[in-house]
Amino acid sequence: MNTVYLDHNSTTALKPQVLQAMLPWLTATAGNATSRHVYGRNARDAVEAARKQIADCVGVQASQVVFTSGGTEANNFAIKGIAANLAPAQLLVSAIEHPCVSRPALALAWQQWQVQTLQVDANGVLDLADAEQKLATRTGLVSVMLANNETGALQPVAELAALAKAHGALCHTDAVQAFGKLEVDFCALGVSAMTISSHKIGGPVGVGALILDKRVDIAPLLHGGGQERGLRSGTENVAGIVGFAAACKLAVETLKTRSATQTSLRGQLETGLQTLGATMFGQQASRLPNTSFFAIPNIEGETLVTALDKAGFAVASGSACSSDSTEPSHVLLAMGVEADLARGAVRVSVSDSNSEAEIQGFLKALQQEVKRLKGLSAVAA
Amino acid sequence: MNTVYLDHNSTTALKPQVLQAMLPWLTATAGNATSRHVYGRNARDAVEAARKQIADCVGVQASQVVFTSGGTEANNFAIKGIAANLAPAQLLVSAIEHPCVSRPALALAWQQWQVQTLQVDANGVLDLADAEQKLATRTGLVSVMLANNETGALQPVAELAALAKAHGALCHTDAVQAFGKLEVDFCALGVSAMTISSHKIGGPVGVGALILDKRVDIAPLLHGGGQERGLRSGTENVAGIVGFAAACKLAVETLKTRSATQTSLRGQLETGLQTLGATMFGQQASRLPNTSFFAIPNIEGETLVTALDKAGFAVASGSACSSDSTEPSHVLLAMGVEADLARGAVRVSVSDSNSEAEIQGFLKALQQEVKRLKGLSAVAA
Repeated sequence: MNTVYLDHNSTTALKPQVLQAMLPWLTATAGNATSRHVYGRNARDAVEAARKQIADCVGVQASQVVFTSGGTEANNFAIKGIAANLAPAQLLVSAIEHPCVSRPALALAWQQWQVQTLQVDANGVLDLADAEQKLATRTGLVSVMLANNETGALQPVAELAALAKAHGALCHTDAVQAFGKLEVDFCALGVSAMTISSHKIGGPVGVGALILDKRVDIAPLLHGGGQERGLRSGTENVAGIVGFAAACKLAVETLKTRSATQTSLRGQLETGLQTLGATMFGQQASRLPNTSFFAIPNIEGETLVTALDKAGFAVASGSACSSDSTEPSHVLLAMGVEADLARGAVRVSVSDSNSEAEIQGFLKALQQEVKRLKGLSAVAA
Repeated sequence: MNTVYLDHNSTTALKPQVLQAMLPWLTATAGNATSRHVYGRNARDAVEAARKQIADCVGVQASQVVFTSGGTEANNFAIKGIAANLAPAQLLVSAIEHPCVSRPALALAWQQWQVQTLQVDANGVLDLADAEQKLATRTGLVSVMLANNETGALQPVAELAALAKAHGALCHTDAVQAFGKLEVDFCALGVSAMTISSHKIGGPVGVGALILDKRVDIAPLLHGGGQERGLRSGTENVAGIVGFAAACKLAVETLKTRSATQTSLRGQLETGLQTLGATMFGQQASRLPNTSFFAIPNIEGETLVTALDKAGFAVASGSACSSDSTEPSHVLLAMGVEADLARGAVRVSVSDSNSEAEIQGFLKALQQEVKRLKGLSAVAA
């Protein structure tokens, strides 16, 4: 396809090395990892080797990794599963969480949990003073993402986890966007549970994991054959798990060089965006190296994304994970951005596979489309 | 691998044609189906085409297919999701259900549901008179599988669904083992919900679907971005879904010839087993064409499976889906089989890829191992 892909926070293409690692499990050698014959034992060995590889990438023991069908399941599992084994109390989630954290939290509001939202500042960074104040009320669980999917803004999760601990609350972090783009060390964060996902880092869709502190008492979301030490039943997706591990290993090994390339590409992009009069969101925050979130005043984000798509550049307007939504980004509203400007939001998320020529091509196309759309709106006015 | 695979009810190898269908989605063209650019639209088109293909295979409209991460999730979703929107009442599940139906049912027992077990006869077939009697008590939901995974015995689901309807109860069926081995028509069954899975029919692991009557009010198990019309959030596993559809199409197209081959192979197998003095389980029931469940009296099933594995034949002892269980099969106990005999249970499940020579080889190996093990037990006694 000729369209330049600049939407890597939404999903990433499977890396060729990852596909190579998966292929033996997509052919005649497949077996059910709970079977006791040689096919089953080989599948089991592959799953356990993958578990160890992934554990090494986040600094935990293999037994702390629970495989799921992806980030959404892992986040649902964390929120609902931890809450299920606690007496209902306050549940804190930030205003900028992905819906797969905020909606499970809201579902718990029907089960006697008091759900409160933690505020962020104008750069989209968690307000720790607000969190500390709210933690004074008896709190069972607090969940804040490690990096935001729209702005890329990093969140003070380690500080939050320490505050939570001091107040007797457990802390979960959705590290789906951060993992693979930053060093992520579960123990250094001090959280009780952390979500990671495969398809954001060049692995297959349909696999993720919840990393757990062994002391956490969590109820399964999926009951059945008792896989994953009873915490997540269902036949193990061996090919997916092996691919996830290969992608993790590759992501960690190439982290520094990829990060440098991404930072450089983003710098060029944002220099160009400023020239075009773009309003940048969250630019003053510590951010993921690959993410730019901006608006061109008076141009709707959806319209711009569609125009850029026709011009050969794939980018996102707000979060691509929420289907058919025309609401302005909840992240920007939480940052105090006016709804009109928020409706203009466009996200560009690069990878190290993008080139400087692609960034320059994007800026040129953006300039042309902005000019054309402003002309159209002048005619319409 | 030289070991002959005779455990196709546990999992199946991915068919080469299925892998070919998946490969475009395992390479650089991948996109998130909720994205609005060309990569996203192509992914969406692929998911919707797959949904239509699968719907056609079970005689429903595309909008009745909800994709999940597999049979376990679909069964959990059906039981918990339907119950969530009903007032707690009686919940009926058969004594021979897979744990991914019976354990979600037990989880509901903590939420004011009265869980009752439906009995089966000596051939492992649902006792409809027992079901009718229990349906006299106000019942919200009844779940009975279409074909049992251990014995292969077909269940009178259409008759049960009609009884349920007459008593104002909804009916779900786990068709994971039946689908792809028999014609399965959702409307003819008259159920409200039906589970199917990909990896039992030559498709990838990690994908399944719940087929729903549109009138059923079901609560999601996974909350988030609102995919699958809000019923199952999480980034669509495009490669997996496309592979599932390809496997469904292939299974339906080749159903008659595969079934004839399987029936013939099973006949040869069972003739040989009788010569060896095996006790057959559920043999008088209408059964899946590929499944034989038997015991050699006084030989433990686990021991035999291990010995046969060393001799180059991969078979199962009872259900392979339950990890590390040494309990006798709950299916056989429900059929009134003595625990000692039940501990001897071995399941052979063939596919049309097996040959007559492989069946004869298996029988020869079984004869040798039985002779050897009986010799050992004679020494030990």
